[in-house]
Amino acid sequence: MKCACGRESVYYQRYANRWLCEDCFKKDVEKRVRKVLGREVIRNNVKIGVGISGGKDSLVMTYILKKFYDSIPNSEIICFFVDEGIKGFRDVAKKYVVEFCKEFDIDLRIISFKEEINYTMDELVEKNYLKHLNIGKPCSFCGVVRRYLLNKYAFLNNCTYLAIGHNLDDFCQTILMNYIEGNVKNIIQFGKDVSSSTNFVKRIKPLKLIPEEEVILYAKLNNLKYQKEPCPYSHLSYRYKIKKIIEMLEEDKPGVRFGILRGYESLLKLIEYREGNLKKCKICGSLCSGELCKVCSWLEILKGL
Amino acid sequence: MKCACGRESVYYQRYANRWLCEDCFKKDVEKRVRKVLGREVIRNNVKIGVGISGGKDSLVMTYILKKFYDSIPNSEIICFFVDEGIKGFRDVAKKYVVEFCKEFDIDLRIISFKEEINYTMDELVEKNYLKHLNIGKPCSFCGVVRRYLLNKYAFLNNCTYLAIGHNLDDFCQTILMNYIEGNVKNIIQFGKDVSSSTNFVKRIKPLKLIPEEEVILYAKLNNLKYQKEPCPYSHLSYRYKIKKIIEMLEEDKPGVRFGILRGYESLLKLIEYREGNLKKCKICGSLCSGELCKVCSWLEILKGL
Repeated sequence: MKCACGRESVYYQRYANRWLCEDCFKKDVEKRVRKVLGREVIRNNVKIGVGISGGKDSLVMTYILKKFYDSIPNSEIICFFVDEGIKGFRDVAKKYVVEFCKEFDIDLRIISFKEEINYTMDELVEKNYLKHLNIGKPCSFCGVVRRYLLNKYAFLNNCTYLAIGHNLDDFCQTILMNYIEGNVKNIIQFGKDVSSSTNFVKRIKPLKLIPEEEVILYAKLNNLKYQKEPCPYSHLSYRYKIKKIIEMLEEDKPGVRFGILRGYESLLKLIEYREGNLKKCKICGSLCSGELCKVCSWLEILKGL
Repeated sequence: MKCACGRESVYYQRYANRWLCEDCFKKDVEKRVRKVLGREVIRNNVKIGVGISGGKDSLVMTYILKKFYDSIPNSEIICFFVDEGIKGFRDVAKKYVVEFCKEFDIDLRIISFKEEINYTMDELVEKNYLKHLNIGKPCSFCGVVRRYLLNKYAFLNNCTYLAIGHNLDDFCQTILMNYIEGNVKNIIQFGKDVSSSTNFVKRIKPLKLIPEEEVILYAKLNNLKYQKEPCPYSHLSYRYKIKKIIEMLEEDKPGVRFGILRGYESLLKLIEYREGNLKKCKICGSLCSGELCKVCSWLEILKGL
């Protein structure tokens, strides 16, 4: 099949019922990233911190951001790679990230769980320490601490924004999980990105409108080498089940993922949300409801073990 | 296993991790129905219109309502049965309903699609007429018209409330479908039961907190005979897929259905919704955004075929 431009197509965009050639496909992806970021973000005098994991999403995101900012004066990209210490997984990812940043001449900082919290994820799981924090699945700990560390280093490095490689599927999974769990606070906070304490770096999510299969194709067409194996702990996560459900729904009704996202964002606009009396965490200073934020309270417990 | 009261159990309530005997199970179901209705509904000087289909939900609901209101002076129950004309299905259901209402001495009115709109559902599907209304699946037409007719007759019979037999699973299906479709108007209207035109009878949903499997068991324990076969058109519906997804989720995390419902209701409370400028349908008088309401505009098109 041909693309509308006349060239041979490489991709059938099912939800839009159209065939795209390599060039039009790449342009379509980049156009949507540009649309999500807008002129507020794509401008001079910014320093973008990027959470880079070595997976397809963060590499594609960094590649596109680099492309955008290369021609913009007084702009800078710096990558943060969090090494949680998962043998046979994160060490492999690290090689991809180091090579990628070298090839594209991007500044890279490596942050490690071992140095930051004294344990690798493997150690925490092996020692069964997460049960002391009342955490059932590794991802619940790992995800939160990674996010905390990314923000910490983006802040220390004076970043204007912190870019996170969540694609459309990731968004839909989180939205649906929050709906299903019925946790109104999470439903609202995910969309509003509320925390605005003095040491909080505003997050941007450039791949919000890019479905997972398009991230994969974009990586392939640009010869980006990334880690394909999933994290060995990820099959334990609830998110994985929700991922399968969303794939089923999309198969049945192409475009449903955009519907989930749009509906969620429209709903949020109607919600008047006040955060209540937030305090500053006594250790890290981030906004929280108690004396300590969740991460700092976990880390305190781990110190005592 | 024994019930907490010491008797032999008949049911394991997985989401509450407890075994219940026949008596405690029935009381538990009835208690939750009473809680949903509250004193505003369970009182004297009311006339409850009941949508009865011959399935487990509407029969269990009517049975419990009858039990509640039997001892309340100046209260009345009247059943409305809508016969859409689906051969081998609704005619079978009708027998169950007629026998049930006779046994429990409840007033019954039968409303038929053929008389009301000039076509049975079978005729509409056979003639492929729904395509003229831009309707893909029969349920989208049937559900809306049934609802319209139930309200019409509840209003004509001066009912205070119109009881609909939606169980917890039905609620979760609708909530999740609306979330997934991202239709904010539907998300809000389903929960707020907004329309409050002069000829709108307030709906109540007594089985809101009763999971489907408990409705089935309650019917069995009370020897209620109901139609078990699903509607021949129902496998075509999107709802059926969502039903399977919710069953999967509940299997994985018992209690998740209550979470979906609770989260949805909490979210709704935070939403300030104004309906905009509604007009009255020129034919039936119900509130709508255009000149005619959806049902009346469909019926006008059908008249012209």
